[in-house]
Amino acid sequence: MIKLLVVGTVAYDSIETPFGKVENVLGGSALHFTNAASFFTDVGIVATVGKDFNLDGIGFLKERNVDLSGIRVDEGKTFRWEGKYGYDLNQAITLKTELNVVETFKPTIPEDLKKAGFLFLANIDPTLQFHVIDQVGSPEAIVLDTMNFWIENKFDELMKVIGRVHMLVINEAELREISKEHNLVKGARKIMELGPSCIIAKRGEYGVLMVSKDEIFLCPAFPLEDVFDPTGAGDTFAGGFMGYLANMGDTSLETVKQAIIMGSLMASFNVEDFSINRIKALTYDEIKGRYRSFRKCMDFGDITTLA
Amino acid sequence: MIKLLVVGTVAYDSIETPFGKVENVLGGSALHFTNAASFFTDVGIVATVGKDFNLDGIGFLKERNVDLSGIRVDEGKTFRWEGKYGYDLNQAITLKTELNVVETFKPTIPEDLKKAGFLFLANIDPTLQFHVIDQVGSPEAIVLDTMNFWIENKFDELMKVIGRVHMLVINEAELREISKEHNLVKGARKIMELGPSCIIAKRGEYGVLMVSKDEIFLCPAFPLEDVFDPTGAGDTFAGGFMGYLANMGDTSLETVKQAIIMGSLMASFNVEDFSINRIKALTYDEIKGRYRSFRKCMDFGDITTLA
Repeated sequence: MIKLLVVGTVAYDSIETPFGKVENVLGGSALHFTNAASFFTDVGIVATVGKDFNLDGIGFLKERNVDLSGIRVDEGKTFRWEGKYGYDLNQAITLKTELNVVETFKPTIPEDLKKAGFLFLANIDPTLQFHVIDQVGSPEAIVLDTMNFWIENKFDELMKVIGRVHMLVINEAELREISKEHNLVKGARKIMELGPSCIIAKRGEYGVLMVSKDEIFLCPAFPLEDVFDPTGAGDTFAGGFMGYLANMGDTSLETVKQAIIMGSLMASFNVEDFSINRIKALTYDEIKGRYRSFRKCMDFGDITTLA
Repeated sequence: MIKLLVVGTVAYDSIETPFGKVENVLGGSALHFTNAASFFTDVGIVATVGKDFNLDGIGFLKERNVDLSGIRVDEGKTFRWEGKYGYDLNQAITLKTELNVVETFKPTIPEDLKKAGFLFLANIDPTLQFHVIDQVGSPEAIVLDTMNFWIENKFDELMKVIGRVHMLVINEAELREISKEHNLVKGARKIMELGPSCIIAKRGEYGVLMVSKDEIFLCPAFPLEDVFDPTGAGDTFAGGFMGYLANMGDTSLETVKQAIIMGSLMASFNVEDFSINRIKALTYDEIKGRYRSFRKCMDFGDITTLA
């Protein structure tokens, strides 16, 4: 029984960072997401690839109980993204985007996957995201990601989707752009008026800010000395986040906070190597070890004079 | 007996933010620092002002046991800074700097203040900072701040000062500039090779990162919906930080971490009004209340499956 469904892209990326260069490596929002989420729960993935896609490259996901039946092989080439980063790894510069099979993608959710209690709508056209919501029943949590392109070109469609989801997981710049508020807390409250009960703003190396109706939660990013390639960090965060939620089977604020910690941990691994490599080779013991280090970085005991 | 000594500037600021405008209001690094630190310990301040300075305006500090004997009234006008901010309140734009009496300032530390166990060298010419260190005995902690102007124009002098201090409290951009490393953890380790045992990087609305030889500590910024004027936030942070250290009388890592929390709390108040107004009117109960909220924003219990 699949608990978590993701709809998004599977891609071939070509990436240059100050620390190296790779061509046509596995990438895409849904793949990064699934790679991380599969550590915690059974995941189903819906995406399209072209005839040029080597399905063996993602075969390892089956061993982690990922349902790949929703990956459709369409006529044409696989989605390709080419980008680079300078030393400020918070800013990706897109050199080329070839939509290829994604251009005519219309996601059809296999019957088995429609019952998943948790749904992540990775960054694709909001019209398609809406189409996905229409196919599923009433998941316990629908979580949405998007990007500046859709905010600028399909604002009305995006607003309709936002009205039907429970949470947003977006970059802080996108939160500002959607809400037209510079202050993130104010911006989040404005978006919540449309329906969602929780806004999670990703702030790259600065961590994550969550705003719900009653609470605010601050999660710093795990401090790394060597960040190799940030591509997919946001989707890896979302994967750890939703994998944890789906496994716990609830969306209480306490679970959401812990899921944010888990997402941040997974993202901190993802940026240590190109493509999906680091998370593919990751062990649960490594996650445990880093969790202990992460806790230590945030622990200051208690200021007894103020308690 | 004065426990904490600060040497820096007392100024008249003219500031414009998207939320208002003020002219010739109290400011300066040493004044913001003292205003915050005096909540926690007895502070002595060394600075220069001009004949135009209204000493009554800072008379309230005496009631908080601040020793003002080190404020010298010199011939000429008080230091003046004019700046503005856009909606990105992390970035100040300097419109005008009039050094006035600061141009010929040569700090002389009164005998009584030389014995303070904690010394904060606020942002002034590193040659003067070195001159201050030469006058004091062996304080338990000397903490340094600086700015890009000195990094670019007096690099060698600054390096000499860094070699004689215990901690740095600087902006993340300055940490990168001094260390010539983009990664903050790496940059901090490089600076520690010169002598300091602890580097505290201020990241504005993103909080604070501390790197010591053995540990890293991450402190987010308290989330505010209304930030009014960030001027002096960094010095207010340093004031809360060192006020707490001096009061505790130790520099163990645990105390340093709690002092960072205290500094962050004080800075969060400072940005809620122009000039020194908010901290001047602040009560200890307000600090306690915000501490409880701040703790809550960082609390996620424990992920038992990873513990």
